[in-house]
Amino acid sequence: MKLLLTGFEPFGGSKINPSEQVVYKLADREIAGVDMTTVILPVERFAGPDTLIRTYISAQPDVVLCLGEAGTNTTIAVERVAINLLDFLISDNGGHLITDKPIITDGPPAYFATLPVREIVNVLNEKGIPAQISHSAGTFLCNQVMYEMLHYIHKHQLSTSAGFIHLPQLPQQVAGKLPLRPSMSLELMVQGVTAVIETLAASVITP
Amino acid sequence: MKLLLTGFEPFGGSKINPSEQVVYKLADREIAGVDMTTVILPVERFAGPDTLIRTYISAQPDVVLCLGEAGTNTTIAVERVAINLLDFLISDNGGHLITDKPIITDGPPAYFATLPVREIVNVLNEKGIPAQISHSAGTFLCNQVMYEMLHYIHKHQLSTSAGFIHLPQLPQQVAGKLPLRPSMSLELMVQGVTAVIETLAASVITP
Amino acid sequence: MKLLLTGFEPFGGSKINPSEQVVYKLADREIAGVDMTTVILPVERFAGPDTLIRTYISAQPDVVLCLGEAGTNTTIAVERVAINLLDFLISDNGGHLITDKPIITDGPPAYFATLPVREIVNVLNEKGIPAQISHSAGTFLCNQVMYEMLHYIHKHQLSTSAGFIHLPQLPQQVAGKLPLRPSMSLELMVQGVTAVIETLAASVITP
Amino acid sequence: MKLLLTGFEPFGGSKINPSEQVVYKLADREIAGVDMTTVILPVERFAGPDTLIRTYISAQPDVVLCLGEAGTNTTIAVERVAINLLDFLISDNGGHLITDKPIITDGPPAYFATLPVREIVNVLNEKGIPAQISHSAGTFLCNQVMYEMLHYIHKHQLSTSAGFIHLPQLPQQVAGKLPLRPSMSLELMVQGVTAVIETLAASVITP
Repeated sequence: MKLLLTGFEPFGGSKINPSEQVVYKLADREIAGVDMTTVILPVERFAGPDTLIRTYISAQPDVVLCLGEAGTNTTIAVERVAINLLDFLISDNGGHLITDKPIITDGPPAYFATLPVREIVNVLNEKGIPAQISHSAGTFLCNQVMYEMLHYIHKHQLSTSAGFIHLPQLPQQVAGKLPLRPSMSLELMVQGVTAVIETLAASVITP
Repeated sequence: MKLLLTGFEPFGGSKINPSEQVVYKLADREIAGVDMTTVILPVERFAGPDTLIRTYISAQPDVVLCLGEAGTNTTIAVERVAINLLDFLISDNGGHLITDKPIITDGPPAYFATLPVREIVNVLNEKGIPAQISHSAGTFLCNQVMYEMLHYIHKHQLSTSAGFIHLPQLPQQVAGKLPLRPSMSLELMVQGVTAVIETLAASVITP
Repeated sequence: MKLLLTGFEPFGGSKINPSEQVVYKLADREIAGVDMTTVILPVERFAGPDTLIRTYISAQPDVVLCLGEAGTNTTIAVERVAINLLDFLISDNGGHLITDKPIITDGPPAYFATLPVREIVNVLNEKGIPAQISHSAGTFLCNQVMYEMLHYIHKHQLSTSAGFIHLPQLPQQVAGKLPLRPSMSLELMVQGVTAVIETLAASVITP
Repeated sequence: MKLLLTGFEPFGGSKINPSEQVVYKLADREIAGVDMTTVILPVERFAGPDTLIRTYISAQPDVVLCLGEAGTNTTIAVERVAINLLDFLISDNGGHLITDKPIITDGPPAYFATLPVREIVNVLNEKGIPAQISHSAGTFLCNQVMYEMLHYIHKHQLSTSAGFIHLPQLPQQVAGKLPLRPSMSLELMVQGVTAVIETLAASVITP
């Protein structure tokens, strides 16, 4: 399986993004049967999806798995659906603060992930790694890149599977901060995303 | 520093107690300058404190650090105070379900931990391990053994320092369960409790 | 403005549904410029949407506002989008427990509410009635009736506006229950939904 | 029954304190068999308890019920215990920011409320008004005035019953704010505190 794995750079004043950390860790590891390309996406309305699509075109993966950070999550959240909406609560790293605009004018209202989300969540929970299916990827960059990737694949009638996973914050991001927030250690996230990739490698039939 | 470190057996239908796991891990490790005795306490109204006091008498530690599990915590919670109250929401492992009774009739209403709780929490948060001071250790066995240990030390005018730390649940305890709950990985807990012990070893002046 | 206002019957073992209570209260009140039809929908995979669509056809409203209950919400949540998915965590009142099925095979992935969701939320918060935009209406009956109503309107190229609002639980539904959950009083909900209807009456241009 | 009912002025930048609002409402109402004195306490390390004790001395009540605000509570929380500790997370209205100091040097570690806390919580929950027993009144002014009142009564060997109740925030305090927080309407709080006072009037034997 040729996999494109993406994370995001830090945003919102933070110096760390767990999705970036996980991608760095996995870029150094071998997973049997997986030929992996990785890229860190800018948290910016234009550069984020552009970097993703350009890397996709050059890597020609069978599967795209994008990772991002969800501030108050307790679990690894496998997103079911991306909606055609930009509604930023904070500015992106380019200073854009967009309210109630479509990602793609005249694009369809939503795309469902084409990964086996139920199976992924079951595999993680059976391994003791807290996971859930999520039905909202938000209205910021995470939802946007998921939507734009699925839109590109759909528009060009490609067979690539694609989806998005939100990670909780890392312990060092929440330590000493109020209000208290849940976190997950990097090792557990890496273990979790590795299990996701193995599940994908087993379930995705590659020609 | 002679340290007595205690955990609790599982209770309430669970097969795991993070405090027990952490004690098992630390029993196998060397911490410089620390002579450690460990014991797992029964979650039972009488056997719990009895096991603690008997082990205390035989070990004669400088410091007692008791660990327990707090179902919905996001952080390592260093307890400031134990109150003279038993009020169980669930039965203990001996089938006792006690409501609104003092732990020790005519005992004082409360004891403050005699550990440097502020310093411990600061050390943990500075290391990126989420921690907080807590002002309620509950009204179950955790609060009871903290109260009884401090009462014994006070009654016999001993110089031992003592306190209690609540740990979150382990990832495998919350995986696949609703409502979603936060968790902390065993390795981070072990790292945290090790840092606590090192802080105690540095701050407690032993003759 | 001709308004169709709907609530749901109780479900999941509960004897009360706040959306039903609010509809009963509003059915007895006059709101200037509003000609209101009300109906309580069964929480059942087939009878729920059927009752809605049949009432819609007979009432021919300008606006459809459906209300439902969201177990752990703190605010009045105005739903932005309904997705083409049935994924029940509990059985509906007909005993159906459906996993990962589309509401309408070959239906579009989602419909956006055609109500002014941003304006509604702003009006409520300005009045001191806690409100938020929500980007997931769940995957149970609430999401289903929102999706089916918008699908019907779209399919028949009608000009009706439609949307869905989730209400928190009532105080008496959470009193004495663990884990502790937020609630909202019936009077505040009625005040909130009244403000929503007045906002709709002012913003919807009726021929 | 002669009752002293107290609330607090707003603090921490807020313009409202629900406890003040509830006291104002109840000051205007008649409760059968209750002779009520009310006072609003300053949120200030010295003036808070001084105002309470002076009003107590002049009113000579049978029962003291103090009310305060708890930022993230979902229920009416009847406090079981006050501890001898000042540890402010924010400055009081006099600009004092006190860390880890006793309220009264050489005072006992804690006082239990001398109100029937269990009965009060049961009465509220049976009436459908969400309530809980709380085992921490915090370490700010609320805990302080509860401690100082009980200390004064104890020191002077008086027979007055006293305790503290924390109220959630009002809907208008949380509307439009992030993170989302629970709230309770003023009418429900007033209904709840009235039920508490009726319970006290029925349970307190007055000479």
